[in-house]
Amino acid sequence: MGLSYLVYPGAHHTRFHHALGCMHLMQNAVRVLRFKGVSISSEEEDALCIAILLHDIGHGPFSHAMEHSIVNEVNHESISLMFMEKINEEFNGSLTLAIQIFKGEYDRQFLHQLISGQLDMDRLDYLKRDSFYTGVAEGNINSERLITMLNVVDDELVVEEKGIYSVEKFLLARRLMYWQVYLHKTSLVAESLLIRVLKRAKELVDRGVHLNASKALRFFLENKITADNFTIEVLETFSKLDDYDIVSAMKEWTTSEDFVLRSLCNMIIDRDLLKIKIKKKKFGEAKIRKRIDEFKGKYEISEEEARYFVFTGTISNQAYHQNKQNINILYKSSKIVDIVSATDQFNLKALSKPVTKYFICYPKHID
Amino acid sequence: MGLSYLVYPGAHHTRFHHALGCMHLMQNAVRVLRFKGVSISSEEEDALCIAILLHDIGHGPFSHAMEHSIVNEVNHESISLMFMEKINEEFNGSLTLAIQIFKGEYDRQFLHQLISGQLDMDRLDYLKRDSFYTGVAEGNINSERLITMLNVVDDELVVEEKGIYSVEKFLLARRLMYWQVYLHKTSLVAESLLIRVLKRAKELVDRGVHLNASKALRFFLENKITADNFTIEVLETFSKLDDYDIVSAMKEWTTSEDFVLRSLCNMIIDRDLLKIKIKKKKFGEAKIRKRIDEFKGKYEISEEEARYFVFTGTISNQAYHQNKQNINILYKSSKIVDIVSATDQFNLKALSKPVTKYFICYPKHID
Amino acid sequence: MGLSYLVYPGAHHTRFHHALGCMHLMQNAVRVLRFKGVSISSEEEDALCIAILLHDIGHGPFSHAMEHSIVNEVNHESISLMFMEKINEEFNGSLTLAIQIFKGEYDRQFLHQLISGQLDMDRLDYLKRDSFYTGVAEGNINSERLITMLNVVDDELVVEEKGIYSVEKFLLARRLMYWQVYLHKTSLVAESLLIRVLKRAKELVDRGVHLNASKALRFFLENKITADNFTIEVLETFSKLDDYDIVSAMKEWTTSEDFVLRSLCNMIIDRDLLKIKIKKKKFGEAKIRKRIDEFKGKYEISEEEARYFVFTGTISNQAYHQNKQNINILYKSSKIVDIVSATDQFNLKALSKPVTKYFICYPKHID
Amino acid sequence: MGLSYLVYPGAHHTRFHHALGCMHLMQNAVRVLRFKGVSISSEEEDALCIAILLHDIGHGPFSHAMEHSIVNEVNHESISLMFMEKINEEFNGSLTLAIQIFKGEYDRQFLHQLISGQLDMDRLDYLKRDSFYTGVAEGNINSERLITMLNVVDDELVVEEKGIYSVEKFLLARRLMYWQVYLHKTSLVAESLLIRVLKRAKELVDRGVHLNASKALRFFLENKITADNFTIEVLETFSKLDDYDIVSAMKEWTTSEDFVLRSLCNMIIDRDLLKIKIKKKKFGEAKIRKRIDEFKGKYEISEEEARYFVFTGTISNQAYHQNKQNINILYKSSKIVDIVSATDQFNLKALSKPVTKYFICYPKHID
Repeated sequence: MGLSYLVYPGAHHTRFHHALGCMHLMQNAVRVLRFKGVSISSEEEDALCIAILLHDIGHGPFSHAMEHSIVNEVNHESISLMFMEKINEEFNGSLTLAIQIFKGEYDRQFLHQLISGQLDMDRLDYLKRDSFYTGVAEGNINSERLITMLNVVDDELVVEEKGIYSVEKFLLARRLMYWQVYLHKTSLVAESLLIRVLKRAKELVDRGVHLNASKALRFFLENKITADNFTIEVLETFSKLDDYDIVSAMKEWTTSEDFVLRSLCNMIIDRDLLKIKIKKKKFGEAKIRKRIDEFKGKYEISEEEARYFVFTGTISNQAYHQNKQNINILYKSSKIVDIVSATDQFNLKALSKPVTKYFICYPKHID
Repeated sequence: MGLSYLVYPGAHHTRFHHALGCMHLMQNAVRVLRFKGVSISSEEEDALCIAILLHDIGHGPFSHAMEHSIVNEVNHESISLMFMEKINEEFNGSLTLAIQIFKGEYDRQFLHQLISGQLDMDRLDYLKRDSFYTGVAEGNINSERLITMLNVVDDELVVEEKGIYSVEKFLLARRLMYWQVYLHKTSLVAESLLIRVLKRAKELVDRGVHLNASKALRFFLENKITADNFTIEVLETFSKLDDYDIVSAMKEWTTSEDFVLRSLCNMIIDRDLLKIKIKKKKFGEAKIRKRIDEFKGKYEISEEEARYFVFTGTISNQAYHQNKQNINILYKSSKIVDIVSATDQFNLKALSKPVTKYFICYPKHID
Repeated sequence: MGLSYLVYPGAHHTRFHHALGCMHLMQNAVRVLRFKGVSISSEEEDALCIAILLHDIGHGPFSHAMEHSIVNEVNHESISLMFMEKINEEFNGSLTLAIQIFKGEYDRQFLHQLISGQLDMDRLDYLKRDSFYTGVAEGNINSERLITMLNVVDDELVVEEKGIYSVEKFLLARRLMYWQVYLHKTSLVAESLLIRVLKRAKELVDRGVHLNASKALRFFLENKITADNFTIEVLETFSKLDDYDIVSAMKEWTTSEDFVLRSLCNMIIDRDLLKIKIKKKKFGEAKIRKRIDEFKGKYEISEEEARYFVFTGTISNQAYHQNKQNINILYKSSKIVDIVSATDQFNLKALSKPVTKYFICYPKHID
Repeated sequence: MGLSYLVYPGAHHTRFHHALGCMHLMQNAVRVLRFKGVSISSEEEDALCIAILLHDIGHGPFSHAMEHSIVNEVNHESISLMFMEKINEEFNGSLTLAIQIFKGEYDRQFLHQLISGQLDMDRLDYLKRDSFYTGVAEGNINSERLITMLNVVDDELVVEEKGIYSVEKFLLARRLMYWQVYLHKTSLVAESLLIRVLKRAKELVDRGVHLNASKALRFFLENKITADNFTIEVLETFSKLDDYDIVSAMKEWTTSEDFVLRSLCNMIIDRDLLKIKIKKKKFGEAKIRKRIDEFKGKYEISEEEARYFVFTGTISNQAYHQNKQNINILYKSSKIVDIVSATDQFNLKALSKPVTKYFICYPKHID
């Protein structure tokens, strides 16, 4: 949830909670499917549990912010995989099947879909959990019932007809959580600032400025890490990074000599963020220009520095990707139909179109 | 919830619970509106509480079934009103304001909207309560937040912009609860049977057959009560009717000499109901004919009697009536917009169209 | 919960809910015990589920009241057993093992203890359920954790050391629920009145007075049923009795010509009960005498009739019976100790002493 | 909750949550008391809310550990007071009444008791909250009902008779939470280690060793802060300290050159703690001696260093202090009685006796 607790103070749950929750749901899913006659061996069950337990292990602290600043070319799935392979070595190959399922290379596809798909245990856990801890009750989903409605036909995960409304509800809850929580405008500002803090820090370090930071964080500030040089040693250092490193660094940098770094850090630490406006259309260049100029003038800083405080961006959200991974509904008549066609009245097609919005951020006092 | 407990065994909550819940929500709504500067006098507050506490008092046992059988021309609102007026007499006029608000005759319309409107306390309570007791978690709504988002502009109840998603959620939850709970096919059969039990009993009594029943129920079986002769004495008798009268009578009638009455009662009491099929199109006359003939032949009964067991009907559901009572969204810019126009992406228009479905019921063994 | 809803309006849950809940807990208990290496065959598991599902089937409506009035010599366990045996016949002996376990005649005693013992699934369900529905949160217990702490040593159910506090909590919650809910003074009055309604009705019927009642109830009013003549036909009729029969009868009897019956029924139906006083000492005979005389005088009724309205009684509660069935704590050292000795500080011995209180009931207006 | 999340992974709630919760309960308490006729002015209400909101502001990170290591002579109440006085200056005296109530210097004592007493809002919030987040359901209390039962007699907070069982439950839950959560043996080890980490760090800094740490933490390591020199500047620095400073420092110190510091930090960070044994009697000196000698021998360290890893201590818990601040029960007869005398059967006296236990910690591999 990154910095969401700045908006929803209850949102202090951890990735560890999520991993345990996913595994719990996976055990239920296995029980339900077996009960319906789908054979799942105990090796497959173990592999599913391992894979879901570790599926997010590659997420660093404030993962999305980091991916856009200091490890920007390496996605978390591939890091998760590196971790699993490292652990597999230590455990003499007992994670091999889990890794195959995780990568989608095992010949029973529905097992992979339980890990990563439109209705995977990951989503069933995080939507419910995030809804609970933020208090955004509208995002609550009925994970238990969705799991009870699962079945497998021709090696594909399907949802039985009786679960249609629960699937609709799930898709709508997901959309709602995106707009109301994950893309909440204040979180958006906070995350944008955090990305800029890390970018600026990296820039300063590149210029030879000394910045207090933990050993692990310093490594990533001092080195340009890409997918190509993400060695096992880098992984080791990466594994030591957590929220404490990032937040402590920001706290120290609130007294940095650099105006940009100091100001950005203070904004986050004191929760005194930039203003943000969100619209359905792009912001005109003139408006942006005017705000940059004002800010530059006021603080006598460069164009490049001002752009740390005045910037635009887009957010988009698509609740359902019909062409990627479908949610298939299994009728009593054995017919299988995509959820979008299965719901008669309700325009789920609308949810398949991505919605894009535009935002601009700028300092409060130059509004 | 009538006979819904035959489907959802947890659904044993009572109208008394609902009335208390509504009053609780009303107190919250008054607090919220006052906090926002809407003046509500303490007399108005009391009147609101009284009106919402009594708004459903005119519902008899298995209300919808009764309205379609033994008191079929009298709606429950007008009976509620009769009760309120009777109580008003006993309490020397202290319900006068409550009655005005209830009838929509008081000059501040938003007070009436809190009692009866698209977002009244009645709905905010029953959706949440029924969702909870049935376990249909998808129908849960965030009553608390909806109330917190209420405001009044030009004597109209509005919802502040931040509450848009909660309103969407509310409309969808309502639609879902209709299809999944209130119009659940098994409840539908049970209710249809109950209507026929009461109609048949009335018919038999008209013919002079003696049927065991409580005094109150016997009164309604023996007399043709319409809006015209619903006197204060009828009201008195009506007030004595509750679920115990209806269910006890059905239990006694399971051994009636009349084939129709006996069979219908046994179906409900033993939860061994008719089959039901639901489609988007009308059922062809030939199909119905065939089933009636089969059943007639099997039990040597008349056409009229067979039609108690083989019948068709329609159900329909419209989550939002745009032209009757709107849900208005208040933007920060002070603009007020109907919810259907206010939500950009999501096709709420679909929810404004009534959806009609057709059903046929018939005995299991003649399928 | 009998008439507890007169005190706790939420208490409308049913015996069916309880039976389902018990079975759910039983399934968890079997899973936990198996996980700890206790072997339970699938036949034994089925038998446990059947036995717990049916353990209360012999309870009639307002069971305790009925046992003290119209079927006063027959306890509900023996009726449950009759039902099980009848069903066993119909199911060709597939309940035989369940019955053995239920009766304690199967050679693995711990299976019986799961059905009926200090920590059986029955108690683990009803305490939690009744606490939830009454809203008496103090009576809530942690059934899940208690079950997780169960183990079996030498064919005896034991609780692992880590569960000591949960057991303490369970015993205290049980005591609290007794005083605050099951023996709540208003419920006590209502139940005492109900017993007297049924006794009086039986008396009147004995004298030849006609009373409206359902067929099933009339059977029990007209016949003296004891353990000796509780035949399979009686069982059949008994199975038709439920709350509807009793409450409907009381509603009809509110207009009885008999002063006693009519008054008692009205008190319950209008929830306008007798006064009650509870003390730690017996009430003096003079006080009782005085109230009887006053009431006799006021209504010109006989001594015997007056005693329906003025009466005394005792209630008692013992949270823990050390000598009957112990709760044994299993230490890590493998030592097994009774819970009373196992808790060091806290005086559980006090809970082993039965506490008796005395009450008197009498009409309000003669106070 | 300090390091409790090492035992109860859900325990990630914050002091901010607690402060908000307390204020919420305070608002309820004010409403209840006013409803019962206790006059509380709106100034007093504001002051109560301010005081409870800030009552814990003086707690540093891992407060108890810090009080026993780096700010060991300054208790958190006096720091809270310093903060309030500082804020009072900034807000031109608008906290004056809150401070008087907090210090117990305002002439209406019951207001102080709501902030700090046997049944204050602090306890009513933290017991419920900690029970919820740890999942130790047995510690749950019915805060709402306790507040509803509050009243004021002769300027003393009392609990009405009907609330006796809720008070009993509260005292027992408190005792249970102490043994099962706050004094859980694993938390105890973790906290003992943390105290030693900070002590050792201070020692090393005293000797001139450089240790990476945040500016704020370094200040407290480099200076000996006591109540005497806790100036406003110290307060300013203290306010910058949070969990991030402490945990980040420990992470950095896991690679310290000092064997003691490094080992202690690794134990906490890797959750690979010391063993602990708890007994009702003191541990014999010989046993301790033997373990120290073994450990000294194994790692060739000094007696003083070894004592960082082998040490003893005591824990004690007293659920109810009868002589300090009573919980008074108000009978309907207007009599007021201490809860210990008010509960008849149940030996609450036992809860008034402090219970002391002894523990020893030592490294696993020298067991």
